[in-house]
Amino acid sequence: MSEQTRPPVLASTLERGMRVLALFRDHHVALSLTEIAESAGLEKSAAQRLTYTLHALGYLDRDDKTRRYRPGLRMLDLAYAFLIHDRLLERALPRMIEVSRTLRTTVNLGVLDGHEVVYKARIPHTSLAYDTTLIGVRQPAAVTAVGQVIAAFSPPEVLERMMEPGLPEPVTPFTCQDPALVRERVAQAQRDGYVITNQQIMLQEIVIAAPVIGANRQAVAAISMPVYIPEWSEERVKRELVPAITDASRTISSVVALA
Amino acid sequence: MSEQTRPPVLASTLERGMRVLALFRDHHVALSLTEIAESAGLEKSAAQRLTYTLHALGYLDRDDKTRRYRPGLRMLDLAYAFLIHDRLLERALPRMIEVSRTLRTTVNLGVLDGHEVVYKARIPHTSLAYDTTLIGVRQPAAVTAVGQVIAAFSPPEVLERMMEPGLPEPVTPFTCQDPALVRERVAQAQRDGYVITNQQIMLQEIVIAAPVIGANRQAVAAISMPVYIPEWSEERVKRELVPAITDASRTISSVVALA
Repeated sequence: MSEQTRPPVLASTLERGMRVLALFRDHHVALSLTEIAESAGLEKSAAQRLTYTLHALGYLDRDDKTRRYRPGLRMLDLAYAFLIHDRLLERALPRMIEVSRTLRTTVNLGVLDGHEVVYKARIPHTSLAYDTTLIGVRQPAAVTAVGQVIAAFSPPEVLERMMEPGLPEPVTPFTCQDPALVRERVAQAQRDGYVITNQQIMLQEIVIAAPVIGANRQAVAAISMPVYIPEWSEERVKRELVPAITDASRTISSVVALA
Repeated sequence: MSEQTRPPVLASTLERGMRVLALFRDHHVALSLTEIAESAGLEKSAAQRLTYTLHALGYLDRDDKTRRYRPGLRMLDLAYAFLIHDRLLERALPRMIEVSRTLRTTVNLGVLDGHEVVYKARIPHTSLAYDTTLIGVRQPAAVTAVGQVIAAFSPPEVLERMMEPGLPEPVTPFTCQDPALVRERVAQAQRDGYVITNQQIMLQEIVIAAPVIGANRQAVAAISMPVYIPEWSEERVKRELVPAITDASRTISSVVALA
């Protein structure tokens, strides 16, 4: 295949099929064909054909009684495909497991995707809320420890892109609403090498994060450890977790930079 | 949308796009357009259009230097969509985390898909091989503890479907090659309530599995714990893990049956 001179046209059937699959990330209940058509902005006949295809291939399951659809087991094949290709994760995971086991805390690995952070791996130690134990969770980067610490070790435009949509609607009484404060924390993180956030996304949750630095001396990811009030306080996190996470951050960065 | 009288035709562009995505589960290196076309059995022009579309949507990443493709971050959105819909997993996970923490072993949850088992969740305690820590891994059910114990608590046709393709090519010197032995172990599992396999898929790995029983009194999944020789022996597994896994199996079954 020779050099592309002009970009090909999007395969619209494929684009619409992926739109149907992606619906299930925001809708956490089984959907009827009518709901699929409406939510995906498709004609019913198109929705029917796409849904039928995804069901025939195993990417959607259908409840014969309610005639509603949910993600099917083949979706996990795609999760595996993503994970098995991820060299960074492959190198980071053994150390993350070790840290989780030693410190008896959950350890996550997150990356930045525009103004969101996405979690690629979770080593759970406790399970307070199901969705915080899952991979693929997205959070507004500007108010998360992972987002702030990645921005601190990235070129300035990364922080600008992260801040661009404005700060997210508060989800706890403590969610930061002041852009200047986010910038201050990112600047502080450049000096400290870590970030601690307090109840920004979830009540009673304190998160500490440190960067994973790639071969180009910039953050390619961050590891984070969420811990919970009242067992933990910011003071205790500083005392007990800062040395461990900065050490883990250095070790993981050194193996990742070899990749 | 009224009752379907005849099944709609598969949307072939979507089917072929999913075929391109699924390639990356078996090919663990980045692929060129030519390789994608060949492996998916597509004309180059079709492969180019589908790949371009998947790349534009974020489901594939492209290395600008090598011009090769790998799974993109959007794939994780589909992983999340699958996991957030899985009520069984939601109910099983807190107990799995607890067991892993208490016994200091890896705990997995697997389900049967025809003649394969697929792992939906992993609580890793050690990381000997990267791909054994991932979700979505598929293994030949007949020689795995998860497959055998699910068959033991399922209608007889489940065992037949599992045995139908014949036993897999041995991957260790110990991989079972005798179908009668598999049947014997399934029968034994009906009496014991658990299965122990020894180095069937991986050298030095002993696995114990117990069923998760659904509301219909049949196995809907199994939890498994892999442990390693020489630290562990079958004797030690029997002594230390049987009580724990049968207890966990009962607890998880009781919460799952409520779903």
